[in-house]
Amino acid sequence: MKEEFTVTPYEVTGSVDYDKLILQFGVKRIDTAMLDKITKHAGEHFLLKRQHFFAHTNLDKVLTAVEKKEKVYLYTGRAPSGPVHIGHLVSWIFTKWLQERFGWNLVFQIPDEEKVLFKDNLTFEDTAKWTRENLLDIIALGFDLNKTKFLIDTKDAGEMYKLACEVAKKTTASTAKALFGLQPSDNVGKYFYTAMQSVPCFLPSVWEGKPTQVLIPCGVDQDVHFRLTRDIAEKLGYPKPATILAKFLPALSADGKMSSSGENAIWTTDTPKEVERKIRKYAFSGGRDTVEEHRKLGGNPDIDVSFQWLSMMFEPDDRKLASIRDDYKSGKLLSGELKQVLIEKINAFLAEHQKRREAARPVVDKILGRSI
Amino acid sequence: MKEEFTVTPYEVTGSVDYDKLILQFGVKRIDTAMLDKITKHAGEHFLLKRQHFFAHTNLDKVLTAVEKKEKVYLYTGRAPSGPVHIGHLVSWIFTKWLQERFGWNLVFQIPDEEKVLFKDNLTFEDTAKWTRENLLDIIALGFDLNKTKFLIDTKDAGEMYKLACEVAKKTTASTAKALFGLQPSDNVGKYFYTAMQSVPCFLPSVWEGKPTQVLIPCGVDQDVHFRLTRDIAEKLGYPKPATILAKFLPALSADGKMSSSGENAIWTTDTPKEVERKIRKYAFSGGRDTVEEHRKLGGNPDIDVSFQWLSMMFEPDDRKLASIRDDYKSGKLLSGELKQVLIEKINAFLAEHQKRREAARPVVDKILGRSI
Repeated sequence: MKEEFTVTPYEVTGSVDYDKLILQFGVKRIDTAMLDKITKHAGEHFLLKRQHFFAHTNLDKVLTAVEKKEKVYLYTGRAPSGPVHIGHLVSWIFTKWLQERFGWNLVFQIPDEEKVLFKDNLTFEDTAKWTRENLLDIIALGFDLNKTKFLIDTKDAGEMYKLACEVAKKTTASTAKALFGLQPSDNVGKYFYTAMQSVPCFLPSVWEGKPTQVLIPCGVDQDVHFRLTRDIAEKLGYPKPATILAKFLPALSADGKMSSSGENAIWTTDTPKEVERKIRKYAFSGGRDTVEEHRKLGGNPDIDVSFQWLSMMFEPDDRKLASIRDDYKSGKLLSGELKQVLIEKINAFLAEHQKRREAARPVVDKILGRSI
Repeated sequence: MKEEFTVTPYEVTGSVDYDKLILQFGVKRIDTAMLDKITKHAGEHFLLKRQHFFAHTNLDKVLTAVEKKEKVYLYTGRAPSGPVHIGHLVSWIFTKWLQERFGWNLVFQIPDEEKVLFKDNLTFEDTAKWTRENLLDIIALGFDLNKTKFLIDTKDAGEMYKLACEVAKKTTASTAKALFGLQPSDNVGKYFYTAMQSVPCFLPSVWEGKPTQVLIPCGVDQDVHFRLTRDIAEKLGYPKPATILAKFLPALSADGKMSSSGENAIWTTDTPKEVERKIRKYAFSGGRDTVEEHRKLGGNPDIDVSFQWLSMMFEPDDRKLASIRDDYKSGKLLSGELKQVLIEKINAFLAEHQKRREAARPVVDKILGRSI
């Protein structure tokens, strides 16, 4: 029997059953036919092949647009409420790959009010700081800035608020209550916020002056916002956005998705020593209790967080990953050795990322313009 | 026994009992001491002396600021959902007088999303049109444009939305529900909107970089928005706004406030003939059924709409008004003659207003800048 689990945009806990989630959320699995079609147009990506991006809505519409050579916009985002961790990067790296392969425009939303509304102690001073910090990570990933539009909600409300009101007009309080688990004692900003998250689904149609398909690569927990968007889209005369949905990069402890608090995450600014300490100390292991037992019975890569991180992020080479899997299962590779492989991969990635992150400062200054 | 009546920002019906309203709304009557103080600083105004502006909140704070020679901002507004009628002008004319007398800055909010959210069939296309039309009337009144800042919600959300989120964070859905009579089936924009109406109460403190007192001249039905603002202000570190509250200019039929629909209103663009026809046909009369009876028993100015319009708007001269009152009560002045006095006053006012309204076009173009 599976454990209990919860997946909302504001909480992910327990051991997530993704098959159940597909039914619960009313989304579709990315099947072989769909995968082949994407691969035909874009080439292979390990995140697709390994089914880390496992589900979608309306992806067929995106592929139709591609075949008709119509414009498609990507849309992803980041609520700046703390530092960026490795788990955040998965969707963005995939988004960047799509941008590269298709040459698509990207809307990158920074909803700097969201977490202020949802977290009692978070202020706009905090989010101003995290907007700057998070943008460094985002720019470091190498999006094509000539094809990327950042929407910072409190700065760009002049462009967003009217459309948000049109969405809000079609969203009842009871719908928002049900979708996001809100109470009458919750603040009215929480009820309204989802309207702002819908806006980038429709702005491309406004900009292009005709119905324009949007594709949103994101964690599956975010789909609920866009379920609402899909219900409303046609009433407002816009195409329904498509989503391509990722599983969560597990927390080091393997409980739920990587959290933005505590020791359960690797931050993009962690030093090599911190990375080593956290992985050694916290990364949940599928290995056996003793070396002797491990050599004899082998480990379980399917529950091993280090292995899952390699699979989802740090080992794109299928053959290398398969050999790590085999060696771990056979007992040839010990848990400590598997962790060592991951530590080296993360640190190599972060060394490069942190360099690019520093180099991004003038770009971020330019994006933010005035001080925020 | 008084009839039933209803006063909310979204509905005013029945014969309003203003004494009851003072208790219901928890506002204060403008008493003689307060009136004397205002008169000392600003001189006399018939709207005050005749108690058409009859109630307030925190007006003592405004007077303290005046005595300390601190800056005060005026704040008023107009939701652009239709043409402007005579009833709308009362608060604005009084606001303009305050601006003149004290040299205060004014924030004039145009919440062009409010009625889109509250009225099923009203669109942003409609409000764009009415924003332009209504601004012509507002500019025609002669505010000091060097000291007046217009905030058009959908255009100026970049300056307003962040502060609105701070207000929204302190406003629960159940509070909004209770204050504005909302239902779970109402849209989330209706729940959020009041936060936008609070923003101009706090922006002056942001602009000045220190706590700055705001005074809002408005119809008493609007006070409920600012009741919420008062509850929140100190939590956010801003001074509570003050309100100075007007009775409603009665509808021609004398039922509730002048409505923005039907034949119950005089529009600022009405021709002299239309004015004459409407007053003759619809203005509720306190006169007797026959001339003979009227001559014998006299009319009742207190229920006569023409007389009330003269008192609230068109006859600032106390002696002239008293003599009209006496003549009407004694039966010397017939209803038709009283109506004739009003018709001439309105048409003289509108002739001038319509000229100024036309002359305002280039100013409005400049305020709106881009097309809306």
